[in-house]
Amino acid sequence: MTSFVRKDVASNTAAEARREADEPHSPVVRFGAGAPLRLDAGVELNHLQIGYQTYGEPNAAGTNAVLVCHALTGDQHAASLNPVTGKPGWWETMVGPGKPIDTERFFVICANVLGGCMGTTGPASTDPMTGRPYGLEMPLVTIRDMVNAQAMLLDHLGIEKLLCVAGGSMGGMQVLQWAASYPERLFAAMPIATGARHSAQNIAFHEVGRQAVMADPDWRGGRYLAEGVTPHRGLAVARMAAHITYMSDQSLHNKFGRRLQNREMPTFGFDADFQVESYLRHQGESFVQRFDPNSYLYVTRAMDYFDLAADYGGVLANAFRGSKTRFCVASFTSDWLFPTEDSRAIVHALNASGASVSFTEIESDKGHDAFLLEEPQLFAIARGFLDSAARAVGLPAGRGA
Amino acid sequence: MTSFVRKDVASNTAAEARREADEPHSPVVRFGAGAPLRLDAGVELNHLQIGYQTYGEPNAAGTNAVLVCHALTGDQHAASLNPVTGKPGWWETMVGPGKPIDTERFFVICANVLGGCMGTTGPASTDPMTGRPYGLEMPLVTIRDMVNAQAMLLDHLGIEKLLCVAGGSMGGMQVLQWAASYPERLFAAMPIATGARHSAQNIAFHEVGRQAVMADPDWRGGRYLAEGVTPHRGLAVARMAAHITYMSDQSLHNKFGRRLQNREMPTFGFDADFQVESYLRHQGESFVQRFDPNSYLYVTRAMDYFDLAADYGGVLANAFRGSKTRFCVASFTSDWLFPTEDSRAIVHALNASGASVSFTEIESDKGHDAFLLEEPQLFAIARGFLDSAARAVGLPAGRGA
Repeated sequence: MTSFVRKDVASNTAAEARREADEPHSPVVRFGAGAPLRLDAGVELNHLQIGYQTYGEPNAAGTNAVLVCHALTGDQHAASLNPVTGKPGWWETMVGPGKPIDTERFFVICANVLGGCMGTTGPASTDPMTGRPYGLEMPLVTIRDMVNAQAMLLDHLGIEKLLCVAGGSMGGMQVLQWAASYPERLFAAMPIATGARHSAQNIAFHEVGRQAVMADPDWRGGRYLAEGVTPHRGLAVARMAAHITYMSDQSLHNKFGRRLQNREMPTFGFDADFQVESYLRHQGESFVQRFDPNSYLYVTRAMDYFDLAADYGGVLANAFRGSKTRFCVASFTSDWLFPTEDSRAIVHALNASGASVSFTEIESDKGHDAFLLEEPQLFAIARGFLDSAARAVGLPAGRGA
Repeated sequence: MTSFVRKDVASNTAAEARREADEPHSPVVRFGAGAPLRLDAGVELNHLQIGYQTYGEPNAAGTNAVLVCHALTGDQHAASLNPVTGKPGWWETMVGPGKPIDTERFFVICANVLGGCMGTTGPASTDPMTGRPYGLEMPLVTIRDMVNAQAMLLDHLGIEKLLCVAGGSMGGMQVLQWAASYPERLFAAMPIATGARHSAQNIAFHEVGRQAVMADPDWRGGRYLAEGVTPHRGLAVARMAAHITYMSDQSLHNKFGRRLQNREMPTFGFDADFQVESYLRHQGESFVQRFDPNSYLYVTRAMDYFDLAADYGGVLANAFRGSKTRFCVASFTSDWLFPTEDSRAIVHALNASGASVSFTEIESDKGHDAFLLEEPQLFAIARGFLDSAARAVGLPAGRGA
């Protein structure tokens, strides 16, 4: 009857987090003090570093680049083994040779977001001014800041225009922000399972997660890295609560129902009696091994602040006015975190702005996480949309064509 | 940028919890060692104490008793000022003079549940064998145990048969268990916004809450009362997560939307920027002032274990076979914790068992908590159902008749 995250299990993670933040496992771009990123918070971030991965090869005309944007706790390892977890990339269902985002045809870029903890500057990074981890000294970041950092990366890579930018959830928010901020740099955009603003309910869930982290005495006012501890327990609770929102009632029922864990009778105790409890605890435990707690605060906050219409006089259509970008919007029937009505609001605004848009609500019982899972209808839609965009810019036909 | 539950704010709560557990603010019945309660966990609980309240007067024929069952964190103060919070009773919308459960007509009893912390034996109570608080030495309890304890209370009060038993959420689970365990002691039953079993998603949310409590170092393996501390921070996080599930996306949107807290611009910090954050923090803060953390573990666990069909060969209808009880089942359209399909499953089983049942799905955007709020359709249904039951047993007409 003890809490499930024992201190000894993860005692090295603080040190590991620092090492990872400063010695990433993927290519990085380091922007010097002469190329600051002006943040929405009103300050400049100097010495920006961006960790990224690429898949496939750029063509000579520079017309085959696809930017993939990751969700809250994702990273740049979209389509290759994740060096931290040892697991496949988070979007291998969608990105790879012969996949809908076909790396034999497209040059795919995925960057760790600003505020993240996998090679891009975030609160676990070393502040070059002090030599210590930023912690809460790092200014807060927004989805727009993330997108502006990605634009700097593309400049660095010599990519003037993207064939497409695609992503789900927070990745979809970045897609929308790209379309609003850099319409001339996008031919097509694919926002999936997302919204143009974060709802009150979603803010509420994020706030619970942040409070769980900050309630952990090992958070130390955000200075845990400097003090050699990590608020594992709080972060695990945050992840558990969030994980429920990524699934549907139906998918939890299908996966676990009320089945007990390796026994016939309940234990009449507080150990994990039900399989769903054991599963959730595992989600919490494994998350704390790979994610920085302060980074979780920053990235959830960026999602909460996202309200694209607010930057355009309160009218979402204004964000896309005059855009020549083609849009493909998709939602999932059982997604209650970003329900279909959020996608419909995007589609209505795109229609009102005169943009080219297709929209599909995909029947699925897998909840929000459906965009990461085996969803043949999503694959077919993405494949068709990208193929059409590729043909329109004159790319040769792909394998499946 | 600190956690919101400061230790100094609630430093007396551990002592207060003990005092409240042993010196309740309402009538109590103390059952001696000669009247043990046999628990589902397979052990006997001696020295059971039950804290309760009554409203109205019993009639000479003993035909006007209505038992009201409270939800997870409710208590016996259904229709009178709560002496701990100073707030009105939790069901004053439904119970009182001239109200649907009319205390001018009915003798209403409400008892704190077994495992609770408002006068009925729970983990914060003093174990008479040791003189110390039970803590986790208290055996786990089930909804059936709660109902059996209530039956002992009714025996003590000389009430042989109830005109009706009514309750929402966990209160509704008790109503269903009453109908299954004591059909001969019930004329009518009103289970509201409830289910005959707790879903995987609901177990998952409860598990997050329990982990939040147990992750707090001040939980001390459940021995915090003996050690003079209280896991306020963990309990507050648990309450925040749970509170979201009691509301609907729409009600959170209507109430708060994305409105900022007393300012025009976001702070770019981790203080409560949005009104919904401030509201949730307040929910957490006020809850820890009135509820025992171990009690929260026990009562959530009781709900998780509830699966009425499992006790009747897996067939819910068998739980009601041959019952002469009249049932009135109600659900709310926006309740996603106990969605209408859970009520439908109850109604199907009642129909299959040949019981008398009426069912209404009430249109409401208030989510699960609608059963506690101003819902005229609920009031009309409850009034009509109870009036009909009262006439059937020969009670004189009420004020509204």
